[in-house]
Amino acid sequence: MLNKLLSFIFSLLSLTAIGQDDEAFFIKSIYDHTLTDGVCYPWLSDMCTSIGGRLSGSDNANDATDFVKDKLLSLSLDTVYKQPCMVPAWERGDVEIVKYVSDGEHLSATALGNSIGTGGKILKAEVIEVQSLDEVRQLGREKIEGKIVFYNRPMDPKQLTTFSAYGGAVDQRVFGATVAAEYGGVAALVRSMTLRLDDHPHTGVMSYKEEFAKVPGLAISTIDAEELSDRLARGPVQISIQNEAKVLPERESYNVIGEIKGSVFPDEIILVGGHLDSWDIGQGAHDDGAGCAHAMQVMHTLKALNYKPKRTIRCVLFMNEENGLGGGKEYAKVSNEKGEYHLAALESDAGGFTPRGFTCDGDTSTFKKFFTSLNQFEDILSPYNLYIKKGGGGADISPLKSQKGLLIGFRPDSQRYFDYHHTSIDRIEAVNQRELELGAAAITSLIYLIDQHGL
Amino acid sequence: MLNKLLSFIFSLLSLTAIGQDDEAFFIKSIYDHTLTDGVCYPWLSDMCTSIGGRLSGSDNANDATDFVKDKLLSLSLDTVYKQPCMVPAWERGDVEIVKYVSDGEHLSATALGNSIGTGGKILKAEVIEVQSLDEVRQLGREKIEGKIVFYNRPMDPKQLTTFSAYGGAVDQRVFGATVAAEYGGVAALVRSMTLRLDDHPHTGVMSYKEEFAKVPGLAISTIDAEELSDRLARGPVQISIQNEAKVLPERESYNVIGEIKGSVFPDEIILVGGHLDSWDIGQGAHDDGAGCAHAMQVMHTLKALNYKPKRTIRCVLFMNEENGLGGGKEYAKVSNEKGEYHLAALESDAGGFTPRGFTCDGDTSTFKKFFTSLNQFEDILSPYNLYIKKGGGGADISPLKSQKGLLIGFRPDSQRYFDYHHTSIDRIEAVNQRELELGAAAITSLIYLIDQHGL
Repeated sequence: MLNKLLSFIFSLLSLTAIGQDDEAFFIKSIYDHTLTDGVCYPWLSDMCTSIGGRLSGSDNANDATDFVKDKLLSLSLDTVYKQPCMVPAWERGDVEIVKYVSDGEHLSATALGNSIGTGGKILKAEVIEVQSLDEVRQLGREKIEGKIVFYNRPMDPKQLTTFSAYGGAVDQRVFGATVAAEYGGVAALVRSMTLRLDDHPHTGVMSYKEEFAKVPGLAISTIDAEELSDRLARGPVQISIQNEAKVLPERESYNVIGEIKGSVFPDEIILVGGHLDSWDIGQGAHDDGAGCAHAMQVMHTLKALNYKPKRTIRCVLFMNEENGLGGGKEYAKVSNEKGEYHLAALESDAGGFTPRGFTCDGDTSTFKKFFTSLNQFEDILSPYNLYIKKGGGGADISPLKSQKGLLIGFRPDSQRYFDYHHTSIDRIEAVNQRELELGAAAITSLIYLIDQHGL
Repeated sequence: MLNKLLSFIFSLLSLTAIGQDDEAFFIKSIYDHTLTDGVCYPWLSDMCTSIGGRLSGSDNANDATDFVKDKLLSLSLDTVYKQPCMVPAWERGDVEIVKYVSDGEHLSATALGNSIGTGGKILKAEVIEVQSLDEVRQLGREKIEGKIVFYNRPMDPKQLTTFSAYGGAVDQRVFGATVAAEYGGVAALVRSMTLRLDDHPHTGVMSYKEEFAKVPGLAISTIDAEELSDRLARGPVQISIQNEAKVLPERESYNVIGEIKGSVFPDEIILVGGHLDSWDIGQGAHDDGAGCAHAMQVMHTLKALNYKPKRTIRCVLFMNEENGLGGGKEYAKVSNEKGEYHLAALESDAGGFTPRGFTCDGDTSTFKKFFTSLNQFEDILSPYNLYIKKGGGGADISPLKSQKGLLIGFRPDSQRYFDYHHTSIDRIEAVNQRELELGAAAITSLIYLIDQHGL
């Protein structure tokens, strides 16, 4: 195996060989450093508690860009800077009341991102429950007009990864309001995107189609979704909605970038990143403070171990993944204008849980090359119980696909992610320090191997 | 692959073949059932909240035997019964005070299981900090006599699995007091067995050597261990200890057993179990309520899917794993007297976290057989991302080793286990329903495959 590896490296890189044992030893050092002297948890904790939620276009989000820039500056990287980008701005407002007209009981509700509100007025209407966008289309204007459409199809607990369950239900949140409006509905209430039965409404992005009226969209907690469904089974239900959500003018914000220049192939960029923006409720601890903490920890570890990368390792903390991808698009645009080449881009945007592996996306030829060398990676990574397989990269790095490098998504255990996702309880208390550190170490190890071997 | 599997089964069992696709389908049914209609979480929740801690020899522990017997009876198994066994009884008492003599500040402390107390009197002495049992031996009677020995070697965060870190530190808890006494120490305070810095003292078993005096042993929280160490760095520190822990006479308790008789090889027993006893503080939710919930869920799922096992599937909820193994020893003794043969025994005693895999122990020839068929198991289990490798089985099933079957330990993710282990916060709130269910489904799947294939 060692000979095979050596010949592989010689043939590919024509460089002084580094043996598999040395690589295994270095990866052990990565883990040791991260688990004993890691900064990811204290930095994340500091950002969550001192800044909190970081919605694109908010002062908090821009404060966060300064926060992480300072952290990256403390690492003596070769370059640290903020890259301007335009982002949408949306505000929830102070008032957010959803209640039953009959008895005044409140529902745990939260406006969906990008949604309009009721302008502070009370919108009162009868509710109709549906299980899908298609059901609205089938019911048609006759049944929908004037109604609040209540989307109540739960995430499917039979899916093994919660992201699959999310993917199978989230169309209700994204398109529920606009499809309701298409048939005369006056608002949409959406069962929260979680497998739990609890009291926490989950916000998240929604989107309007220009050709239809804009009507308010809100999520309600799963417990309230069950209760509302029960009431509807007994007879007609009227709900009143009063909120102040509104879209504000676009605003300038920033991606934050720090890099170590490659010593041999400086033009081959290996990106590691997460997104700095989060929803306004909660602290965005898992989504995606954890990803930012991971990416910064990679740089911290490589510097602490005095590692001189062959390729350029670039940490990018993207702005505006949640509701626009302004940062990711701008980053790719600038990169393309500069004629850059991202050999690989890895995004961590699935929380700070115990690492399970990585999924990879990319051009067919890139894939072939990478999966040829993969067995060796897997051997070296086997003590850490990490898989590497085909699958998604990440939203922020997706515009880089045209550069034909490898796009990699970090995959931590997904079971608890949607307990917190887009809620007021996505707070630092929900993050386990060791799980976060192990994620950072896993990511650093893969970045290191790609830097050593290329694709 | 299918042909290979079929020929394997024919040759081994001479039975009607069941194809790999059918097995994959059945395992999917196991997961679907557990994730949608599982009882493990509500049953565990009920036991934790209605009974709470279940220390061997306590009324709570015996109440728990009735609780789980009722649950097993509800499953229409072929046999359900309680198997008597004698267990030690130990009582913490009401008073448990550890404080600094100088300023009266309290330390978060809890007596170690089986330890004597101070008989309610105040024991006051100077503290000496050590990092190991060997350091006490090196310091000798001159430095140790009359002192409270404070063991402060932390669990090693560089270990990837927390059980390895625990294994490297727990000798201090088990033998700290008796080694201190050997050199004239008057008590032992032990840094809690956790990688976290927090305020929760972790109890757990300790043991005396007959030839030395019995002195009190207590755990203190990791935050208090750090503080005590800081104070000692500045000068001598006196601590006072007052508690009422005591050993009571042995008492009768029970293992609880439920089984489905095998239809083809009834004499080949496949055991699945956990231990019903827990420490008195907290609710024993992860340790090992989760394991009992897993084992009962296996039976629930097999019955719900109307599965007729070839071999006898026996659920055993053991008493007294924590401080004596009275139940495990009695179970094996009775089993041996009956001339039984356990083809396989699986214990779940590592918490209710996301499953990572299984470790197997056993006789060399058993191993060879099992690992020959293992590739097929791994193929079928691959969608579930579970490893099967050599390693420990479990304490309760270890006395069955003489029967030369396979001993299997269920291995969930270990990162959070010692956040809760043996503390007042090992409560149902610390258990994630889906993680628990996935563990039960993984265990059921392996039990099913072993039932189908033998070893």
